[in-house]
Amino acid sequence: MSRIRKSVEAMQGYVPGEQPKDPEILKLNTNENPYPPSPKVAEALVGASERFRLYPDPVCMKLREAIAELHGVTVDQVIAGNGSDETLALCTRAFVENNGSIGWLEPSYSLYPILSDIADVETRPVPLTPDFKWAVPDEFESDLFFLTNPNAPTGMMVEKGTLLAFCQRFPGVVVIDEAYADFAPDNCMDLVDQVDNLIVMRTFSKSYGLAGLRVGYAVGAPKLIEAMYKIKDSYNLNLLTQLAAEAAIRDDAYKRATADKIMATRERTAAALRERGWHLEDSHTNFLWAKPPAPATAAQVFAALRKQKIVVRYFPAPATSAFIRITIGTDAQMDRFLAALT
Amino acid sequence: MSRIRKSVEAMQGYVPGEQPKDPEILKLNTNENPYPPSPKVAEALVGASERFRLYPDPVCMKLREAIAELHGVTVDQVIAGNGSDETLALCTRAFVENNGSIGWLEPSYSLYPILSDIADVETRPVPLTPDFKWAVPDEFESDLFFLTNPNAPTGMMVEKGTLLAFCQRFPGVVVIDEAYADFAPDNCMDLVDQVDNLIVMRTFSKSYGLAGLRVGYAVGAPKLIEAMYKIKDSYNLNLLTQLAAEAAIRDDAYKRATADKIMATRERTAAALRERGWHLEDSHTNFLWAKPPAPATAAQVFAALRKQKIVVRYFPAPATSAFIRITIGTDAQMDRFLAALT
Repeated sequence: MSRIRKSVEAMQGYVPGEQPKDPEILKLNTNENPYPPSPKVAEALVGASERFRLYPDPVCMKLREAIAELHGVTVDQVIAGNGSDETLALCTRAFVENNGSIGWLEPSYSLYPILSDIADVETRPVPLTPDFKWAVPDEFESDLFFLTNPNAPTGMMVEKGTLLAFCQRFPGVVVIDEAYADFAPDNCMDLVDQVDNLIVMRTFSKSYGLAGLRVGYAVGAPKLIEAMYKIKDSYNLNLLTQLAAEAAIRDDAYKRATADKIMATRERTAAALRERGWHLEDSHTNFLWAKPPAPATAAQVFAALRKQKIVVRYFPAPATSAFIRITIGTDAQMDRFLAALT
Repeated sequence: MSRIRKSVEAMQGYVPGEQPKDPEILKLNTNENPYPPSPKVAEALVGASERFRLYPDPVCMKLREAIAELHGVTVDQVIAGNGSDETLALCTRAFVENNGSIGWLEPSYSLYPILSDIADVETRPVPLTPDFKWAVPDEFESDLFFLTNPNAPTGMMVEKGTLLAFCQRFPGVVVIDEAYADFAPDNCMDLVDQVDNLIVMRTFSKSYGLAGLRVGYAVGAPKLIEAMYKIKDSYNLNLLTQLAAEAAIRDDAYKRATADKIMATRERTAAALRERGWHLEDSHTNFLWAKPPAPATAAQVFAALRKQKIVVRYFPAPATSAFIRITIGTDAQMDRFLAALT
């Protein structure tokens, strides 16, 4: 007799991007920041070991105050999580009945279908157009809808007006995952005060250079955030993570400077690829979504780069198989990448 | 229109034990360790900030190797979580269908009913006898059953033979939460190789003095652990936590020495309370479950201690309202506690 829940037995778990051990490998596959986090982060951790023996603040009040200040919202509109993975999962558990449904854009973050499988509810993926544009039907409904904006893996943005109109007519909760917003010209954070069914998420993994520490947060109507609080793990963010994230978010100038450097490198790299005949949409993220010139295929380029110890990301599903996703590293790293192509 | 799941709207969240801010307060309420963690923990974190920008190992391999070594099990029998809170919650999501049921002992860890409410499934609490002894009916069934052994808040142990027999005849998955095992004369870890429906959990929050870092782990049959892996957050333990926990578990001598000190203080404190007419069962944990002599009531003692800036735990439900739970601190702290009683 199996004691495993049937839906869990049937599902595949999420497969994170490769974390190669060979130090010679250039890792351009998981959209990490090539620069270290603000020096204030390490400073904030000095002496923290004296408090290791005590439980951390279960509601992360100081960190949430810093987040609320940054975005001009109130503390009860903010929840911090053990990476956006946790805040996303909380939404499936807070806003969807057992007989409910979850929707998401495709292609997008490959965790969304897995979270829906874990919730064991009806799944309603909505495809983008073949050139990755917004195409959610006017009559589409679900209890919860996930989208990433700017989107991964495409790096493209849906216009704010389109998303506001979608929230206004959608009956369920809309989650806009803005993991890449610090590399984009605009974002939807101010919409959380215009509609009561929107949650905007951010992460410390990309622009803050803290993927190793696992912190994400969600901002939305107090009633939605309160529901997520009720069901989160009691102490979901440890002491060190709370201290580190607060220090990082209070050093906004450092984050902005780092993001600016990455965006400059992104534009330079995009121009170099276009010169070589690659097709790229404009990226509003810290990666490029790029299609090599025929007769080369994305799969071939991915494999050839791998042989030269450069790891990018390739998604073999039909909608995405013509492209590779290239994380923006330092200028020197992107020079190595470009040299490897020739 | 509410967009919150009905069961979530109806439920109360878990209320963690108070974390008072006044530094003069003696905190004997949440079973934290009065001693700092092994000095190896802080050493292990030196230089880690260089890796903050990278995602951590999603499957915590080095930490699991250390855990597997300690218990003489294989790595595929071990999963580490963001506190036992996470590993407990994973069980509700891995082993219980939407139309299934969860059981637990009462009184015990007050998170169990909340996890069951979050799962939105049938709840089947099983009361202990009025003097807190095992009394699970022979015909009792559920998909999942939680128990803490030694139990909190009572500090009492169920015999290993009783638990083995229970696992052998129980159709679902049994979770024995051994948060306090390092303060007890025996434990059930070796049962995981005798039955295939048992998960034994441990935590770094008590004997290791790392409540602030949030690490727990579960050991069981590979098939059960695999199901939990499929549905956990992709990167559930951050880099610092993995490093800290591995360093702590590899310094077993330090943990043993600390636990021995706490047990000596526990016995001394228990004897002093008995001398004053208190009723106590033998504790196999880092706390005492103690009933003051009449005419004093537990509620009165709790309030009187609070006035003297000593915080213990009082559970007002009928089954537990005659007792207070007192975490064991240092010898000096327990002297202050005993002095405050007179």
